[in-house]
Amino acid sequence: MIVEIIAVGTELLLGQITNRNAAFLGEKLAESGFDAHYQVVVGDNLDRIVDAITIALGRADVIIMTGGIGPTQDDVTREAISTATGRPLLFSQEFAGRLRSFWEARGRQMPESNLRQAEYPEGAEQIPNPKGTAPAIALQHDGRWIFALPGVPEEMHYLVQHEVLPRLRTAAGVDQVVLSRLLRSWGRSESQVAELLDDLYHGSTNPSIAFLASAAEIKVRITAKAPTEAEATRLIAPYEKTIRERLGASVFGVDDETIERVILGLLEERQWTMATAESATAGMIAARMTSVPGASRVFRGGVVVYATDLKASLLDVPQEILDEGVVSEATALFMAEGAAARLQADVALAVTGSAGPDPQERAAGTMVIAVHTPEGSRARVMRLPGDRERVRTYATTAALHLVRLALVGEWWEA
Amino acid sequence: MIVEIIAVGTELLLGQITNRNAAFLGEKLAESGFDAHYQVVVGDNLDRIVDAITIALGRADVIIMTGGIGPTQDDVTREAISTATGRPLLFSQEFAGRLRSFWEARGRQMPESNLRQAEYPEGAEQIPNPKGTAPAIALQHDGRWIFALPGVPEEMHYLVQHEVLPRLRTAAGVDQVVLSRLLRSWGRSESQVAELLDDLYHGSTNPSIAFLASAAEIKVRITAKAPTEAEATRLIAPYEKTIRERLGASVFGVDDETIERVILGLLEERQWTMATAESATAGMIAARMTSVPGASRVFRGGVVVYATDLKASLLDVPQEILDEGVVSEATALFMAEGAAARLQADVALAVTGSAGPDPQERAAGTMVIAVHTPEGSRARVMRLPGDRERVRTYATTAALHLVRLALVGEWWEA
Repeated sequence: MIVEIIAVGTELLLGQITNRNAAFLGEKLAESGFDAHYQVVVGDNLDRIVDAITIALGRADVIIMTGGIGPTQDDVTREAISTATGRPLLFSQEFAGRLRSFWEARGRQMPESNLRQAEYPEGAEQIPNPKGTAPAIALQHDGRWIFALPGVPEEMHYLVQHEVLPRLRTAAGVDQVVLSRLLRSWGRSESQVAELLDDLYHGSTNPSIAFLASAAEIKVRITAKAPTEAEATRLIAPYEKTIRERLGASVFGVDDETIERVILGLLEERQWTMATAESATAGMIAARMTSVPGASRVFRGGVVVYATDLKASLLDVPQEILDEGVVSEATALFMAEGAAARLQADVALAVTGSAGPDPQERAAGTMVIAVHTPEGSRARVMRLPGDRERVRTYATTAALHLVRLALVGEWWEA
Repeated sequence: MIVEIIAVGTELLLGQITNRNAAFLGEKLAESGFDAHYQVVVGDNLDRIVDAITIALGRADVIIMTGGIGPTQDDVTREAISTATGRPLLFSQEFAGRLRSFWEARGRQMPESNLRQAEYPEGAEQIPNPKGTAPAIALQHDGRWIFALPGVPEEMHYLVQHEVLPRLRTAAGVDQVVLSRLLRSWGRSESQVAELLDDLYHGSTNPSIAFLASAAEIKVRITAKAPTEAEATRLIAPYEKTIRERLGASVFGVDDETIERVILGLLEERQWTMATAESATAGMIAARMTSVPGASRVFRGGVVVYATDLKASLLDVPQEILDEGVVSEATALFMAEGAAARLQADVALAVTGSAGPDPQERAAGTMVIAVHTPEGSRARVMRLPGDRERVRTYATTAALHLVRLALVGEWWEA
């Protein structure tokens, strides 16, 4: 089934927001094995939205629209679907009642204009939106599907996962279940991963194997079709086992697990706490670690020792070590040990480097990462490409992955 | 002139990258007064790119394409333009020579396939790309413009600013210069800003006034058309003066100035250094401050005191203050003073708060920011909406703006 994504919103055309919704949909569709040929962005303009739908009906089996189903006069996605399909807008007393209850429950008066959200094109299904007020719309028209979803990311994400994809899977696979398992890896290039799994990639169609590269992370997706979920799971299991054996410790998580969550889980298992000592990344690692709710159970804090003298005064790095080189393995190791001692943490992660654009002691892009755990300490020098922000972001991700390797006992060669 | 943006790349359809290029183009086009009606994303597929161009030629005056002009077999934007316009691809000896020199200068052998980058549709202009190897293409066809730009953001940004927009301005304004000045403000809502400038917005067409909201920042764009740049500048000046008078200290910068750069500039003027003490934002402020090259001239470092006991041990916040409340003005003020003392900085910025999703001492979204300078100290409590990441990001931005206000002597009411 060919899918087309239409995002509605003048703010997207003006560049006030980035169309992350399309990227999310693109990824989820690909994971489920659906092809998207076009993504279109159109402003809050009835005629132009109608044109976009009409073009999409001529080249796609499924149209997924985001945005334009709110309560204001700007929100014309419902009218546009009605016009493009020739189906009049009807009014749902049931949803009007739900809207009124929603507002009453909050002790507020509903503006009458909000009742527009209870309208739907004839023949469409209104899908309740548990994260907001506007119901989504699913319409089967002329052998095609049209979905209209809210533009608010968290509402849209929920509805895609729980309402849109299940309907599409049913439509595509008749009574087949499509199940995907995503193995997330770090430390090998996409071409290395592809080479290690070449026979599986070419030799198997069910499950099928696909590679997705994003930033430094390589994901391997195993997708199986079967009459039941249990059977699909059974088809996937031996492939997951083989892939894990071949990729080894570079596989750090599955599905939606981020490296931060994996680290927090490992620390909790071991009942270890963690601290950071950052120079070039200057807080980016601490910010990433604390992006996960509940991080405070294991993450104690960190220091940003941007000025060289602070590496001595806050972390006890000996002056003679700093004199030999601030961007060095010795400095990074002392920083990690200083952070563990001063912040009373079991595990510490330190980064020092030259982020650029101008070289600082060593060539721009040279980053040194050190990890300290109760089981040992080790440093690693990396030479990263790109501009200042890319170097800092990549170093942050690399540092998190090195901590994970240390926590699972897979220390790299010194 | 109506503009349509076509981004080429299967990785966009798969959601492996977000289409930030379209957001950048949308913003730059809007700033220059051009309307974009559609943004389209299409994969690396010749027929579908040809279809996208053909549709765009029927509804836009200008097509700006990004991506698909690299050296590999996947890069078919040149062929697609050739097919859609019926103009054969020619080969430029001049650009072939440039490509060879580029590779020779690096002491490497150029793969012969790279010569595809020297091809161009008949009648097109090849625009040198000083940030990369693939030349951009500008084609006037049938009263319309087609631009093909690289997908690499930094190459594309450069070419849009220096090549595409000047050509479009010339085409649109005949011999008029279009000049914009962007005043960036923080601390007032878009509707407050619009109300304060309502007479200018409705009463003036040259210069014209527009409002752009992005995150918490409200930008006011003053755009003038005149026969010369000097005259356009003269038209803008009195409006800028009036707007600055009405918006007061909330205007923090112009054009591309970020709040981080403004703060670094103010610190350098005063020869003051700065440090941070972060709890809920956990390094995000330090990371923002150090995103600017040269930050080390004034930024000393910071501490991330996520665990409560570290607020005492690393920043000397008295235990009785912490016992009264960690998310409090008193704690934030002691954190700022502790950071100034321990990190030997003149200015310190502290944040403590409850980022959510679960409340921590105070309701989720409650953030306390304190600023310490040689001229005084003050704290401010904010209640921010949204999820954990939004609260942390908004608090980071708010903290930076409060430091700036303190640095220019505009302390808020306690």
